[in-house]
Amino acid sequence: MVMMGGGNPGHIPQVQERFSEILHELAIDQAAVRRLVGIYDPPQGEKQFISALTDMLNQEYGWGLKPENIALTNGSQAAFFMLFNMFGGDYGDGSRKHILLPMAPEYIGYADAGIAPELFKAVRPDITFTDAHEFKYRVDFDAVEVTAETGAICVSRPTNPTGNVVTDEELARLEVLARAHDVPLIVDGAYGTPFPSLLFVDATPHWNEQIVLCLSLSKLGLPAARTGIVIAAEPIIEALASVNAIMNLATGSFGAMVAEPLVRSGEILSLSRDVVCPFYKGKMERAVSEFSAAMGEHCRWYVHKPEGAMFLWLWFPGLPVSSLELYQRLKARGVLVVSGHYFFPGLPDDGWRHRNECLRVTYSQDDEQVAKGLRIIADEVKTIWAEAGH
Amino acid sequence: MVMMGGGNPGHIPQVQERFSEILHELAIDQAAVRRLVGIYDPPQGEKQFISALTDMLNQEYGWGLKPENIALTNGSQAAFFMLFNMFGGDYGDGSRKHILLPMAPEYIGYADAGIAPELFKAVRPDITFTDAHEFKYRVDFDAVEVTAETGAICVSRPTNPTGNVVTDEELARLEVLARAHDVPLIVDGAYGTPFPSLLFVDATPHWNEQIVLCLSLSKLGLPAARTGIVIAAEPIIEALASVNAIMNLATGSFGAMVAEPLVRSGEILSLSRDVVCPFYKGKMERAVSEFSAAMGEHCRWYVHKPEGAMFLWLWFPGLPVSSLELYQRLKARGVLVVSGHYFFPGLPDDGWRHRNECLRVTYSQDDEQVAKGLRIIADEVKTIWAEAGH
Repeated sequence: MVMMGGGNPGHIPQVQERFSEILHELAIDQAAVRRLVGIYDPPQGEKQFISALTDMLNQEYGWGLKPENIALTNGSQAAFFMLFNMFGGDYGDGSRKHILLPMAPEYIGYADAGIAPELFKAVRPDITFTDAHEFKYRVDFDAVEVTAETGAICVSRPTNPTGNVVTDEELARLEVLARAHDVPLIVDGAYGTPFPSLLFVDATPHWNEQIVLCLSLSKLGLPAARTGIVIAAEPIIEALASVNAIMNLATGSFGAMVAEPLVRSGEILSLSRDVVCPFYKGKMERAVSEFSAAMGEHCRWYVHKPEGAMFLWLWFPGLPVSSLELYQRLKARGVLVVSGHYFFPGLPDDGWRHRNECLRVTYSQDDEQVAKGLRIIADEVKTIWAEAGH
Repeated sequence: MVMMGGGNPGHIPQVQERFSEILHELAIDQAAVRRLVGIYDPPQGEKQFISALTDMLNQEYGWGLKPENIALTNGSQAAFFMLFNMFGGDYGDGSRKHILLPMAPEYIGYADAGIAPELFKAVRPDITFTDAHEFKYRVDFDAVEVTAETGAICVSRPTNPTGNVVTDEELARLEVLARAHDVPLIVDGAYGTPFPSLLFVDATPHWNEQIVLCLSLSKLGLPAARTGIVIAAEPIIEALASVNAIMNLATGSFGAMVAEPLVRSGEILSLSRDVVCPFYKGKMERAVSEFSAAMGEHCRWYVHKPEGAMFLWLWFPGLPVSSLELYQRLKARGVLVVSGHYFFPGLPDDGWRHRNECLRVTYSQDDEQVAKGLRIIADEVKTIWAEAGH
C-alpha cells in the first residue's frame, strides 16, 4: 500500500542526528535524567523550555513575551481540544458560542473536538486561478461574519489540507475583525512560522495579545514526543494550564527537554529554515512535477498552490464520481489518500459540488512511493473520465 | 518550605539507573530513535509495549488478554478524564449518569474531571479502629447503592489520599455489584498491583472483563513521561482509543519505549516488589514512628492504617480548628500539606465533622525533611489544643 493519507512527517536524517546527540547527552547526565523521567512538570509546562523559548522569540521578533505567555500541551491536538472548548460551546449561562473558521477547507482534526454539538461555523473561500492547473483559496471577507455568538476565530497557516498560506494581509484583516469583536484569533502554526517552517512562500511570524499562536514540535521531527506550544495573553495561558491540570495533571517533559538546546541556541530556526523547509520544498516540487506529467491535458485538474505543509490538494472539477468513491477506487489499487469532503467542518450542507471533488495527498514519505502513488491517481482519474465516455 | 503536599514520587537511584541505561541504549540505536521521536503511535498506544505487557500479564496472572484489551494514555489523569466522561455525564438522550465512588475519601484529582456537573456520588466509609492511634476505612456496603443512573463504579487501590487498600473481599463484593448492574468497576491502580506495588499489605492482582484496571508508570519513577495504562474489555479500549484520537491524536511514545524492556523481561515486577515497595515501606515506617513519638498521648490523633501509596492520612478528632485552618497554620510555619476536606468529591454536604479533621501528608521525599515536617505538624496540633485550654 502506498501511504499518502497520514500526517506523519518525513524522515530527515540530519534532524534525527541532532536529536540522537541530545538524547545521548541527556542519558549520561544524571540530573537531566531525573528531570526527564522523575519530576512532574507544572501544568503550564517545562519551565526551562518555556524560558528559552520566551527569550528566543523576544530576541528574534521583539514580541515582548513573558514566560506567563507560553504553555505546553501533550501535542497540538490537545491544545485545540482545550482552546476550542474554552472559547466555544456552552458558557453555562444558557449561551453557546461557536468557533469561526473563516476559510474552509480546514483541518479534519478540528471536526470532532467540540464537547457541544455544532461547534464550528465555516465560510466558503474565494477560488482564484493562479496557473493553468493551479488555484488558490482566499478568504471571502464579504462572507465572514463575526457575531456575538462567536467565541474565537481560528485559521491554520499553512492550512492542512490545502497547503494554502493565508497572506500577511489576510491575517491582518482577520486580526482587525477579532479585535473589533474582542475575540481571540487562533493561528494554528503546526507547519508554520517561526518553526518548523514548512513554508514555500513568505509569511511573517506574528504575535500579539489578540492572537493565540499554536506551534508544535511534531513537524520538526518529534511527532512521537507530543509537544504542543501555545503563545497567548496571560489570562488565556493561566486558564489553559488549569484545564490541562484537570485533564492531564501535567504535560510530558520529553519533547521540551529534547528541543530545549535547539531553542536556547536559536538552532531551531536555522534547522527549520535551512534543513526542514528545503526537505519538504524539494518533495513538493518533485510531487507537483510528477503529477503534472502524469495528468497532462486529458481532463480538468488543479493543484492548490502548494505554499506550505506537506500535502497536495488536488481538485478534479466535474469528475463523474465523488472524492469518496475516488478514494475507494484508489485504495483498491493500493494507494491511500484522504477524500477532501472531510475537510469542511462547520460548513453547512450547501450542495457545493467542490467539496466532493478534492483529495488530500501527503508527499512527506519516500519519493519513489509518492511518485508511484501520484501516477496511479492520475491514471485512475483518467480511467474514470474514459468510463464516462470522455 | 517542607514539601509534603505534592504527589511526586521519591527518587530511587537504583530505578533511575535502569532508566539511564535504557535511555543510553535507545540513544545509540538509530531505528529506536526514529520510533522514539519520529513516528506517531496509533491512538491506542505504542504497539510493542502493549504486546509485551499483554504477554507478561498473561504469563504471570493468566488473564487471557489480547493487545486489544490495552490502551495507553498521556498519564492516568487523562485516562480518568476520558473514562469518567465516557461512562458518566450526559448520554445525549436526556439521561445522565454518575460515577459511584463507593468509599470516600477518594482522589482529589477526580473532583473536577466531569464535563457535566455533579458527576460523582460518593459514600461515607465505616471507620474501624485497628490500634491505639490507627484506624481503617471500610466500604459500608449497606450504604452503597448502584442505580440505573450509575455509569460506573470507581475505587483507587491503594487509595490516594488515605493509603487504604481495599481488601480482596471488598473488591470482590464491588465486582459482584458491578456485574449485577452491568456497569464497569474501574480500579485505579496507579500505586497498586501488579506494578508499581506501593503496597504494604497483601492485595491480589485482579482483572476480568467487568473491570477497567488503570495502571501508571509514574510511581515506578516515570512521572514526567506521562504514561497511563488502561486494561479493559475490547469495546471499552476501542472507544477509549477513539476518544484519545479526537482529544490527543496519539499518545507519546517515550514512557512506553523506556519501560518496554522492563515489561518484556518481567523486571518491572521484581523492581516493583524488591526495590520500589521496600523504598516506600521504609519511608512509611520511619514517618509513622517519627509522628507517633512527636504526638505522644497529649491529644486524640490517628493515622489511617498505612497499607500503601505514599501518604499518611492523619485524623485529629475534635480538633478546635478545621483542617483547612490547620493547613494554613502549617504553611505559615513552612510545612506544606493538603487539607483533607478536598478528598470527598461527590459526598453530599452532610455536616460530617470528620471531613474537616484530616490531613494528607506525603512522605515520598527526603527523610529528614519529612521528619521535620511531621514534628512541626505534631507541635502545631498540640499548640492548637493548648490554645483551646486543653
